Parts: sequence; structure tokens; C-alpha cells
Amino acid sequence: MKRILIYAALAATATAASAQQALWGVPTTISPEINSDSTVTFRLVAPKAVKVQVTGDCLPLVKGPSGEYIIPRVADMTETDGIWTYTTPSALAPELYSYSFIVDGLKINDPSNVYRIRDVQTTSDVFIIGGGHADIYKVNDVPHGTVSKVWYDSPSLDMRRRLTVYTPAGYETSGKRYPVLYLLHGMGGDENAWSELGRATQILDNLIAQGKAEPMIVVMPNGNVDLEAAPGEGSNGLTAPTIALPHTMEGTFESSFPEIVNFIDKNYRTKRAKKSRAIAGLSMGGFHSLHISKQYPDMFGHVGLFSAAIKPHGNPNAPVYTDSENKLARQFGKDAPLYWIGIGKDDFLYKDNEEFRSVLDSKGYQYTYVETPGGHIWKNWRIYLSRFLPLLFK
Amino acid sequence: MKRILIYAALAATATAASAQQALWGVPTTISPEINSDSTVTFRLVAPKAVKVQVTGDCLPLVKGPSGEYIIPRVADMTETDGIWTYTTPSALAPELYSYSFIVDGLKINDPSNVYRIRDVQTTSDVFIIGGGHADIYKVNDVPHGTVSKVWYDSPSLDMRRRLTVYTPAGYETSGKRYPVLYLLHGMGGDENAWSELGRATQILDNLIAQGKAEPMIVVMPNGNVDLEAAPGEGSNGLTAPTIALPHTMEGTFESSFPEIVNFIDKNYRTKRAKKSRAIAGLSMGGFHSLHISKQYPDMFGHVGLFSAAIKPHGNPNAPVYTDSENKLARQFGKDAPLYWIGIGKDDFLYKDNEEFRSVLDSKGYQYTYVETPGGHIWKNWRIYLSRFLPLLFK
Repeated sequence: MKRILIYAALAATATAASAQQALWGVPTTISPEINSDSTVTFRLVAPKAVKVQVTGDCLPLVKGPSGEYIIPRVADMTETDGIWTYTTPSALAPELYSYSFIVDGLKINDPSNVYRIRDVQTTSDVFIIGGGHADIYKVNDVPHGTVSKVWYDSPSLDMRRRLTVYTPAGYETSGKRYPVLYLLHGMGGDENAWSELGRATQILDNLIAQGKAEPMIVVMPNGNVDLEAAPGEGSNGLTAPTIALPHTMEGTFESSFPEIVNFIDKNYRTKRAKKSRAIAGLSMGGFHSLHISKQYPDMFGHVGLFSAAIKPHGNPNAPVYTDSENKLARQFGKDAPLYWIGIGKDDFLYKDNEEFRSVLDSKGYQYTYVETPGGHIWKNWRIYLSRFLPLLFK
Repeated sequence: MKRILIYAALAATATAASAQQALWGVPTTISPEINSDSTVTFRLVAPKAVKVQVTGDCLPLVKGPSGEYIIPRVADMTETDGIWTYTTPSALAPELYSYSFIVDGLKINDPSNVYRIRDVQTTSDVFIIGGGHADIYKVNDVPHGTVSKVWYDSPSLDMRRRLTVYTPAGYETSGKRYPVLYLLHGMGGDENAWSELGRATQILDNLIAQGKAEPMIVVMPNGNVDLEAAPGEGSNGLTAPTIALPHTMEGTFESSFPEIVNFIDKNYRTKRAKKSRAIAGLSMGGFHSLHISKQYPDMFGHVGLFSAAIKPHGNPNAPVYTDSENKLARQFGKDAPLYWIGIGKDDFLYKDNEEFRSVLDSKGYQYTYVETPGGHIWKNWRIYLSRFLPLLFK
């Protein structure tokens, strides 16, 4: 009798499974569909909609009126039986693409696509067309590093602050020490930006597995010193992220940066020589990399400026920005770093970078310069990271 | 002249900042707005929409036709000048709530809210009403643990597989060993579910800071042995997540579980005694906890079944499910674990749990039982975790 009871208690649970599936509310429409010819089909079920469009960087791009940066075009979708469809007119080149739908003027995410990335307050749906350089944006069957959200204490900012830290595959048990890249986000970004929008985790896993990049620790801090962490991850709670960034590009982050380096050297098995430390960033993060590496010339043996802002904002007289000529002379003097500058031809910061390069040229300071098509976009920053990593720690 | 050049290169960059802001596309509507009286106002700009509704667990709940589980009701929003608005008729109790909008029959996320959680293939917008038990769901100004995405090799599954691992604040430098909780998700969930939907990170940080829970390592594996990782995080790429879960609840995950325990014991400073190991899970994860702890009676000193499925699915004759009477007798014999069962009165698994408890009762096996209102929902699983953690490793 007990045996029967127990058998009853342990027999097929199909009911539970199906009942739970019923709770799911799974969309049945396939969107986006990457076709065998590398065209992509988008679908949206919206029987009552009058006009549905798709917008994103997967569509042919045009210059903005100012010519300063690229604006994604909009394409009309066509409706049959309440299902709106659009297929790209031609095959898409290998790349990570993002898109949204516009339903009667309302911009929405694709309810059939769970792969979304947040850029400041805008969330887009994403997909990858593989092949070529985009293959290193994919999660491939290679050894994977560990990605951690770690909190450090900042005495100068009187705050606990959140970092994203990548440690390479094998770190936990190798007992080895590793070089460190500090990788900084742009204005409005946060400690999640490089790992999510930038595919930094996949790029690192793949380049390290291919032997093209040295195994390294990569530290991605939050560059807005008013915030503990990315939206929703700090003690200010699930409130709308602040748009005003009063304490960036005015010297505070740069002067407090050694706190982060000290924390990492204390908590991780790092190589602590200048030649084993790199700093790079995009836009505001490139600006931070420029001024931090100049302020602490013995700290970083490799510097990367990706579409970098150049000029101080808010407080040009902050100590970190003053006496630049002598600081650059010191930085590019004995034991000068590998200095790498990349920018898009259409970037609104192109001219500032041109001026900065002319300063370096006028002094005969050595740097590597890469110019790409396009503007101030993540596509370029993923490419710059992919080109910069293989140069480090050789 | 050089000085002037350099000054020009390093003067205010307001242009860069504002130009970049122009790229953001930040929504200006505030939604949701948590009012001072704990009512909540939702807003959506949709001038061309005919009918806009809000749906979610922040609305008064009703039983489904079958009475088995709760279905969120829908509320009509009202339009003024193209802005649709709805304010809850009464104050909301402290809780984490989720919602979506329905625009002319199309379910969409709130474009003004960046806080979204994915449950299988459905993404909902979320907010927290603080106070009471919901305060431990918040990121508070307390020491924070580290949350890592770590990959382990599974020889038996011939796969690299992804884990979420929580290590308590201070782990990196304390040199101490810690007890370990293995925390398992439900069918359709993944290694991200407990940290995202379950607020496990915040609950652990807060209970540990309050001295109510022991500092512990918490390991959140992926229970679908066909997959390496959560959707988009595995080498199957950014393809629609599989809905069919052929290899769950048929013995494979349970029998391969010691690989995870061995990996954690090898890679983390763990206490390796039975009394320092716990296993718990929700729904399918409760099922896994039941059968794994029964199969390996010397492994876990604490077991938590949260709205647990009980009966095998797919392959009731898998070795892990057979000879249950003797296995339970062994588990509840000498050195019986702390055994905790929690379920909602309206849960579709209530009857299965009732049967299982009658089996335990018939044998005089000791367990703690908690019954709550509501059904098979994350609200209950967050509450169960909050009640279970303080009982562990005492």
C-alpha cells in the first residue's frame, strides 16, 4: 500500500509540464528570420494596425541632414491576414544588427525576438549575420571566460560602485597572473555597455581561443561618478535613469581611477607592470583613457582611443586637464605606450581627433591610426576592439 | 603656438556631449510613475491608437476558468492629447510587479521603462513598490556579493555549460570557506532566472547584511541538458529559444548533477560537508531538488521544494526515479536533511504536493510546510526563497 502511494506520488507529471507550458504565452511568429541567402524577414502580427514599419541599422543607411552621423531609414511592411512582413532587398553583410518596429507611429520591440540590447534608455532587438568579422561576435564552442559583476569601495566618491570583470577561461584554477585591460564606455553608457552592446565577452573568448589575443583580465567600470551602477542595479532603485551626467568629463572619474586599479590588483591575480596594463574606451571612455593615461604616465603601457571625445567638459581647469603639454611630453617620452586611435570618417568627433593628432604629430609622438567608414556607432567600436586586442601585451 | 594648439585640443567639449546626447532617442514620458500614495500611473504616447490597455500582476487578480492558476486582468487606459493613462484604483502592496501594454490588441513593452525581465519568451516591464517584504528585493546600500557567469565542462553531456554563481561580499579576500546552496529554475527557465526574475542577488545581499542569512555561495545551473546556456548565450546563437524541453524531468540532469558539485568544490572555497550543502528549486527545479537529494542522500543537508513538480516526466523508469521508497527511507533516516516544502493554495501542483506530503507523513518523515495564497508565480518563489535562506547552515 505504501509502495502504491509512493508510486502514485512519483508517476508521470505530463499534466504539470503542460499546465506550466500553458502559463508561458510563447509567441508563435518567427521574427527575425535569417534566410539562407542572408536576407532577413521581419514579421509582426498586428491585424488592427494601419501602418507598420521596420527601422534599424539592417536597412540601407543614409547621412543625416548635418552629414555628421548616420540615421537608420524606415521601411514599410506589407500586411497579409493581419501579419505584417518585410524582407531586406538584398543579403546583409556579416554584422550584429539592431532594429525596431513602428506601429502607427509607435516605436516598439519585436515581440517575437527575445534578444534585446539597451543603449541608455532605448531598447532594440538584435540579430547576427555570421561569417567574416561577425563570427567573433558569436558565442562559439570555445573555452569561455567568466563575466562577473563586482562591487568596489570608492573612498574618494564615498560610494560602493559596480564593475564588470572578465577573467579568461582557466583563470580560476591556473594560478597564473594576467595582464589587465581597463575598457571604458561612452556618455550615457554604464558598466554593462561593453559586454552587452559591445559583445566584448564573445570577442575576447574568440580571439583568445584563436591565439590572436593574450589571455587577459578586462575591467569595465561605470564612468558616471554620480551613479553606483547601471540603471536599476544601484541603490537609487528602479527609477528612470538620469540623463544629466553632471560628473563626467570634469576630472572626478579620472582622478579617482587609481582606486579601481588598486582594487583589481588586490582582488585578482594581475601582472602589475605598466607593460601589462592597458586602458581604452569609446567616445567619453576614449576621453577618459586619454586623460587618465596622461595623468598617470607610469600606469598604462597601451592606450586605445575609439571615436574619442578630446576636450574637457564642465571643468577644463580640473588638475587632470591642466599642464597637458608637459604631461603628454612625459607620457610619450621614455617608455612611451602603444597608442592607438580609431575613428569613423562620419563621426561628429572627427575634427576634434584630427586636431589632437596634429598635436601629437607636431611633437613627433608615435601612434597607430585607423580610420573606418561610418560614424559614432557600436558597429565601429566592436571593430576597433577586435583590432586593438591583438596588439596588447606582446 | 604649440601651447595654443594643445589648449584648443583640450578645451570644452560641450559640442561632443550634446551631439552625442542627440543620438540617444530618450523617451520623455514618465511611466510607470509610483505616486506618493503608492498608486501607480502608467502612460503611453500613442495618438493613432484606438484602444490601449495595461495588463499585469499589478492589477486586481482573478482566477482562471479552471481555477488552477491566476490570470492578470486587463484595464483600459484613457487618452488625452495622444497620451494614454491609467492609474491603479488603490495603493499597491509592497511587491515587485510586472506589466505590459496592449495597443489595439498588440501586446508591447512600455517604451518609457528600461526595467524588463524575460520569462521564457515573454518580456515584461517591472517596478517595485517598497516597504515590507519587498524591501529585500531592492538594491540597498549594503555590501554586495559578486554575480558571475561561469562555464563548466560536463563530460557526461559532452558540453560546456553556463552557471550563475553568487559569492557573498568579501569572498574575494576573506580566505574563508563557505557553504553552498544549489538553486534551480523551473521548466522553460535558465541559469539567469533566479537572479533576474527571482531577485536572488538582492535577497541574498540584504538577508546576509541583516545577519538573517549565513554568507553563502549560491549556484544557479541550467536545468535543460539540451542547452549550453540561456537563449542567446550558447553556441546555438541568437535563434529562437527551443520550447520543447525533451531532456528535463527524465533523469539526465539529476544523474549528471554531481559534475556541477565537483566543479564548484574545485573552483571555489567551499565547505564540503553535507551540512554545508543545500539544494532548492521552483517547479521543475523543486522536482530536481527532490530527486537529486534522494538519489545522493549524503550530499545535501538542506532541501527546498518551492511549488515543486513531483512526478517523473518522460522516463519514469530512469534509475534516479526507481526504488523511491528505499531512497526516501535512506534520506530521511540517519542524518535527515532540513526538508522544506512551500506551495500556493491555487497552484496547479497543489494536489501532487498534497499526495507527496501524505507519503512523507505516512512514514513519519519530518519536513517544514508553508502554504501561501496564489498560484504558480514568481511572487511566491521570491517569498519562499526569503523564508528558506535564514534556515540554512545553522
